[in-house]
Amino acid sequence: MPTICALATATGGAIAVIRISGPDTFRVISSVCSVCCDSVAANTIHYTRIKDADELIDEVLVSIFRAPHSYTGEDSAEISCHGSEYIVQRIINLLIRNGCRQAEPGEFTRRAFLNGKMDLSQAEAVADLIAATNKATHKMALSQLRGDFSSELSRLREQLLRLTSLLELELDFSDHEDLEFADRSELLSLAQTIDGRIARLSSSFETGQALKRGIPVAIIGKTNVGKSTLLNRLLKDDRAIVSDIHGTTRDTVEDVITIQGVAFRIIDTAGIRQTADSIEQIGINRTYQAIEKAQIILWVLDSLPSASELTDIQQCTQGKTLIQVWNKSDISPLPVAASDIIAVSAKENTNIDLLEQSIFKAANIPAFSENDVIVTSVRHYEALTRAHANLQRVLDGLHTTLSGDLLAEDLRLVLADLADITGGQITSQETLNNIFSHFCVGK
Amino acid sequence: MPTICALATATGGAIAVIRISGPDTFRVISSVCSVCCDSVAANTIHYTRIKDADELIDEVLVSIFRAPHSYTGEDSAEISCHGSEYIVQRIINLLIRNGCRQAEPGEFTRRAFLNGKMDLSQAEAVADLIAATNKATHKMALSQLRGDFSSELSRLREQLLRLTSLLELELDFSDHEDLEFADRSELLSLAQTIDGRIARLSSSFETGQALKRGIPVAIIGKTNVGKSTLLNRLLKDDRAIVSDIHGTTRDTVEDVITIQGVAFRIIDTAGIRQTADSIEQIGINRTYQAIEKAQIILWVLDSLPSASELTDIQQCTQGKTLIQVWNKSDISPLPVAASDIIAVSAKENTNIDLLEQSIFKAANIPAFSENDVIVTSVRHYEALTRAHANLQRVLDGLHTTLSGDLLAEDLRLVLADLADITGGQITSQETLNNIFSHFCVGK
Repeated sequence: MPTICALATATGGAIAVIRISGPDTFRVISSVCSVCCDSVAANTIHYTRIKDADELIDEVLVSIFRAPHSYTGEDSAEISCHGSEYIVQRIINLLIRNGCRQAEPGEFTRRAFLNGKMDLSQAEAVADLIAATNKATHKMALSQLRGDFSSELSRLREQLLRLTSLLELELDFSDHEDLEFADRSELLSLAQTIDGRIARLSSSFETGQALKRGIPVAIIGKTNVGKSTLLNRLLKDDRAIVSDIHGTTRDTVEDVITIQGVAFRIIDTAGIRQTADSIEQIGINRTYQAIEKAQIILWVLDSLPSASELTDIQQCTQGKTLIQVWNKSDISPLPVAASDIIAVSAKENTNIDLLEQSIFKAANIPAFSENDVIVTSVRHYEALTRAHANLQRVLDGLHTTLSGDLLAEDLRLVLADLADITGGQITSQETLNNIFSHFCVGK
Repeated sequence: MPTICALATATGGAIAVIRISGPDTFRVISSVCSVCCDSVAANTIHYTRIKDADELIDEVLVSIFRAPHSYTGEDSAEISCHGSEYIVQRIINLLIRNGCRQAEPGEFTRRAFLNGKMDLSQAEAVADLIAATNKATHKMALSQLRGDFSSELSRLREQLLRLTSLLELELDFSDHEDLEFADRSELLSLAQTIDGRIARLSSSFETGQALKRGIPVAIIGKTNVGKSTLLNRLLKDDRAIVSDIHGTTRDTVEDVITIQGVAFRIIDTAGIRQTADSIEQIGINRTYQAIEKAQIILWVLDSLPSASELTDIQQCTQGKTLIQVWNKSDISPLPVAASDIIAVSAKENTNIDLLEQSIFKAANIPAFSENDVIVTSVRHYEALTRAHANLQRVLDGLHTTLSGDLLAEDLRLVLADLADITGGQITSQETLNNIFSHFCVGK
């Protein structure tokens, strides 16, 4: 196994951390600085100077981790150096010249998986955790990293094994017809229980995806009703939290607002804002497209819609949640008591919290507790779907008194489907490559 | 002294490091995770979970440093967490709720200075080191951090103190006129030696500034002579080094090329490139402006200049170094053997190394060895200039047999000027604020 190295932090900070892992770690470290790794204790930190021959490169801290008690399970080290890109580059070049290889994306975590430090679903959670931007994604990734999903799968596996052993018992006693029938009702009940739990996991995927990707929201309405003022107000309330902390930046690819820890993606609003002048009525293509992609529609109003407008909008928002927002309540109060219209003032910051509550409520996120498992990965969802289909064949077979050895074959498939998720059986290099190529380098 | 915390890395990497320093560090750490700081050894690393009440925030590594053996000289800790901005924000918020204060820019290094871990010039070198982008700036910052400048100042201080004590000796024996004259020639010689060393330091500032800011280069020439192809070739040769390493990015504010570890800034070339179509001859304002700001002029040619063009260019590049570049040697060879014209082909990558050598030579950087001190900071240069002026008064006084106690007064000023650099005497809060406000947060 080659010894790998990579920058584990981003550059641009006060310090940068370079990670090294593999059997040659201590030899490499000892050859670039004065830390004599053979004689130092595990989990200790050492102040030293990195030198390239006689040239001083940096004064650094080196942390030493010994196999198997490291992130990867291998001998490892971390070099904490000054956060200059030039210095990082010099040190990494030096490590490579001394026998390290530049790590591939996710290679440290891949090794952690291969060395049994975590299962595959936990390894995948590491990438999700690093990408977590709000309370919901953070909670889901952390739960998966902690092994909540793995535990649930392990319980399912136990039940499947019990089902298998009951089937084997049936095979052993297959001469006794009366025994077989008695067993099958127990088998059926157990299989249904398992299928119910798999179905519950599968059905959490929709929520998981929505939370992970952000719930799509379209802000629509005529020109000059204050759509962008409203968006800016929603964004500002959210951004303030982040900008309080120095040294953090937020690269916004699209407008995202966070309400009660859940991300809501604003669809195509920039486009709508830019071309606002040419939008004379609601019924243009761009608006329809935004509605198409959204789950929640904020319809911003400054006058009551006509009956036909309302019908139009209701027709093209079928299956979505429509929220009507009367925006300019500071200069023009809502003329009627309309319980289905929320009166706010983006300008005066009035009732924005009420609107946020409505948006959150419209997202219709099932309450889930600390220990509920939410499936967020397409790979896991697909495995669960396969498991469900194979288990359906078992259930059908139990009903139609299919022979036990055919049922056992299908049960083995279900077990394999679930094992794919945790990587408990031999996982193909291709699957591993797919998973870890989405990681950042240095993790 | 309050306990401070800040993110010490940039966000966006696999991991992030949060730094804590101050008397309350261990109490704060113990209240957010299970590390019992009182019982653990210094310079050790601990795997633990950060919790906000019952809510798990992250699985982290905590490093423990005990006063005075830490960067700041105080009790300190570093939390290495997953590199999610959300997680970083949660942990910093949690630390603040437990009694930490968000650190100001450079506050950790400021404390290192106040606690005598480094002098002020070394503290300033930390910021330079983090900002180092090439061999030259790296070498200068590291030399200053290591204390080469401090040592030189300390030697000067010793000589100044010796001068002072000789003056005091003169005061004690001021009745003996013959003794006084003997002393003064020794005093004069010593003062001249000191002044020579201060002058040498001062004169290094020009080089230091050029190396730190990059040596300004203008690429001029008629339309379609291949200026931008040449620039791209020079840039590409340089960039390739950086892009080899994953996970690093380079935010280019202006075009910078590095030759033999020294940065060269290309002036206004983007502008010239953009408006290249409208440039019909050399003699336009924009070209003159670029020449004005540059130290080195690359005059790109595809035909021999007329005598009047040559005279024009030589006149407006007086005091600069002019390099004539025959660019398209692949399709049209240099028609005459002209030793003052370098024939290259940017397209074919021919003789580009030769051109780079010429540029480097034109920069006329004085050879300086590993241990030479180069002054890079305006603040230091100003202090040296004041010291030089005050020492001139001492020299003048020695010539004009000014009384010893007046000379001693001026000598004390010289000592104070040099002490300003290292912060050896009491440094004003304003000076410290000025210095550390240019630091990043977390250092």
